[in-house]
Amino acid sequence: MRGEVMSQCRPSRGGSRRIGISPHNAFDAFSRRYGPRIDAGIHAFFERARSHPPFPEAVDWYAILEEYCTRGGKRLRPLILCVSYHGYRRGRERDVAPFAVALELMHSMFLIQDDIIDRAALRRGGEALHLTWGKRADAGKGEAVALTMGDILMSGILDILARSRVDYPSQQRFTALLSSTMAMTASGQVLDILHSSIGDVGDAEKIALQIATMKTAHYTMSSPMIMGRALAGGAAGSEDDRIRSFAVPLGVAFQIRDDILGVFGREETTGKPADSDLAEGKLTLLVSGAMQRLLGSDRARFMKIISRPNKTPRDIHEARRMIRESGSLDAARDRHRMLIEDSRRRLRALRIAEDSRAFFAGLIDMIESIPISI
Amino acid sequence: MRGEVMSQCRPSRGGSRRIGISPHNAFDAFSRRYGPRIDAGIHAFFERARSHPPFPEAVDWYAILEEYCTRGGKRLRPLILCVSYHGYRRGRERDVAPFAVALELMHSMFLIQDDIIDRAALRRGGEALHLTWGKRADAGKGEAVALTMGDILMSGILDILARSRVDYPSQQRFTALLSSTMAMTASGQVLDILHSSIGDVGDAEKIALQIATMKTAHYTMSSPMIMGRALAGGAAGSEDDRIRSFAVPLGVAFQIRDDILGVFGREETTGKPADSDLAEGKLTLLVSGAMQRLLGSDRARFMKIISRPNKTPRDIHEARRMIRESGSLDAARDRHRMLIEDSRRRLRALRIAEDSRAFFAGLIDMIESIPISI
Repeated sequence: MRGEVMSQCRPSRGGSRRIGISPHNAFDAFSRRYGPRIDAGIHAFFERARSHPPFPEAVDWYAILEEYCTRGGKRLRPLILCVSYHGYRRGRERDVAPFAVALELMHSMFLIQDDIIDRAALRRGGEALHLTWGKRADAGKGEAVALTMGDILMSGILDILARSRVDYPSQQRFTALLSSTMAMTASGQVLDILHSSIGDVGDAEKIALQIATMKTAHYTMSSPMIMGRALAGGAAGSEDDRIRSFAVPLGVAFQIRDDILGVFGREETTGKPADSDLAEGKLTLLVSGAMQRLLGSDRARFMKIISRPNKTPRDIHEARRMIRESGSLDAARDRHRMLIEDSRRRLRALRIAEDSRAFFAGLIDMIESIPISI
Repeated sequence: MRGEVMSQCRPSRGGSRRIGISPHNAFDAFSRRYGPRIDAGIHAFFERARSHPPFPEAVDWYAILEEYCTRGGKRLRPLILCVSYHGYRRGRERDVAPFAVALELMHSMFLIQDDIIDRAALRRGGEALHLTWGKRADAGKGEAVALTMGDILMSGILDILARSRVDYPSQQRFTALLSSTMAMTASGQVLDILHSSIGDVGDAEKIALQIATMKTAHYTMSSPMIMGRALAGGAAGSEDDRIRSFAVPLGVAFQIRDDILGVFGREETTGKPADSDLAEGKLTLLVSGAMQRLLGSDRARFMKIISRPNKTPRDIHEARRMIRESGSLDAARDRHRMLIEDSRRRLRALRIAEDSRAFFAGLIDMIESIPISI
């Protein structure tokens, strides 16, 4: 999934101070509170799977999957789910960790598929799963095994749902949200694949924005929040709309930040090759922006470079330069800033507990900062 | 999934006549009763998906998926689920069609993945889904889109669960069974991929049998039966064990029949190239049987041919001859016969309604006949 680069990024102490509780502290406090529960939930799932494997060898397969699923990372989506639950809860606290784990397993499944599709080598600071399996299986079979491991994660989601002990209506609402999130994210992925090589200039920005909205903003921000609220007993309605008004701009800003770091960030900061988005020819807002701003032969040259299947370091360098000089980078930063301000304003309208609001203010601060030096 | 070849195959009128109700008639009657409900359920799912697509273009994507999911076929798994439900039901009838549809969507997802993994061209008398998408997307992107379409089917399963109106315990038990079936089938698939090129002779038969049990017998026969019984309110226990004692041998027989037709059947009967199993070098019981029976240089030659990535028609012809002359074909037929007799005996022990029993007797008759001429 897009919008992955959050490493080495801390909420600043500026920006959202007006909330009262320090956003930085709120983010850390919730991470400390829910992070270990989420990780324990993931571990418990794999323990259970290993204790009654469908086949003896599968014990090892689950170990490989667990290592993959528990690599470093902020567990942003399950964390958001938990904080939203906390912020909307009225009655006594229930254990929402299993639902957060279900969301995280879905995320891992998407990452496995993403890396197969993009032929990526690195993930979460380690090896992509199809490469791990490529060493254990025959030539060309790594992808096949990794893909099927995704099904095993999916069976894990069903297993978690089957063991859930919330009331039936909450369970059904959560399941419906998980379903629509999955469909929305997969549709964003299809759109991304279909437009991964650059077609019509006119539609490019609209499509890039649509992909960012479906694949990142709903998936990473608004869906986990709405799920958390549903588990807290909140019925669908106007607060969900307010959540979307807050979370979708924030999610798109998150994606733009990711796109900028994917082209101009340093590998040490982002944990992935700084040129991978360009190398893959992804239709990001940076790329569509350059397409629209460049004219005549410059545009033709940019599109030719971006569409090349095997780009040289020189190609990458030139594409990067054209994105900057066309004004696309500045435009992306302006848009990012506007979206951040919009989400900050919308956050105030949410009818959520103040400590949860402070968490989201901290999240905004984190997404606001884009550590590049150019 | 394995065990797919059921076309042009009707229950004979012999074999199971002792049951009282004609197995042939029972199979047809249940097919007429539940078949249209299952197809209507699949259609209703896609109608619903199209009525609120995550993205306008997705309406077309769902149309392509629906065509794929509704191609000709016996809908064997959902049908078995429905007939089992009917046979174990005590109270008033509920609508089990949605659950049967969930199972069928899972099946379509597995078929999409199978064809990507095997690079198969044909499925259900039409084009494999990644080829359909290969024409609409850029070079090499057909697999990526098809794979992601599998996620959309998975979201459909969650959608069906979210809309279910059975009681909570039945829903939870069904979800647990769907989960374990998915994990078992995926594990069988992993085993199949890892052993798709031939390794150690000693273990080959054991592994081939394990793959057939996991990927076909549980998946196609015993799981749908146990799901149907669970939806009828049946608690886990000794009747589930009796179901497994009946359905696992029948499922393995089904796979052996499929393996034999995959090597010795005619394309007109089976709907897929008669040499595809051999071409892919699948570790079937026929292949493992030949490996064990051939000696010295013959075995070395057989394994060399079977392991070749690109087999000539002459290779296929020779492998086929060696399977026959080694006695592996006869051994497979003997094993098939024994398993059929075993399942016939076990069927009598089930505490199931007589018309459902007659349906399964009809199914045994269908699986008993192997239309090859050699």
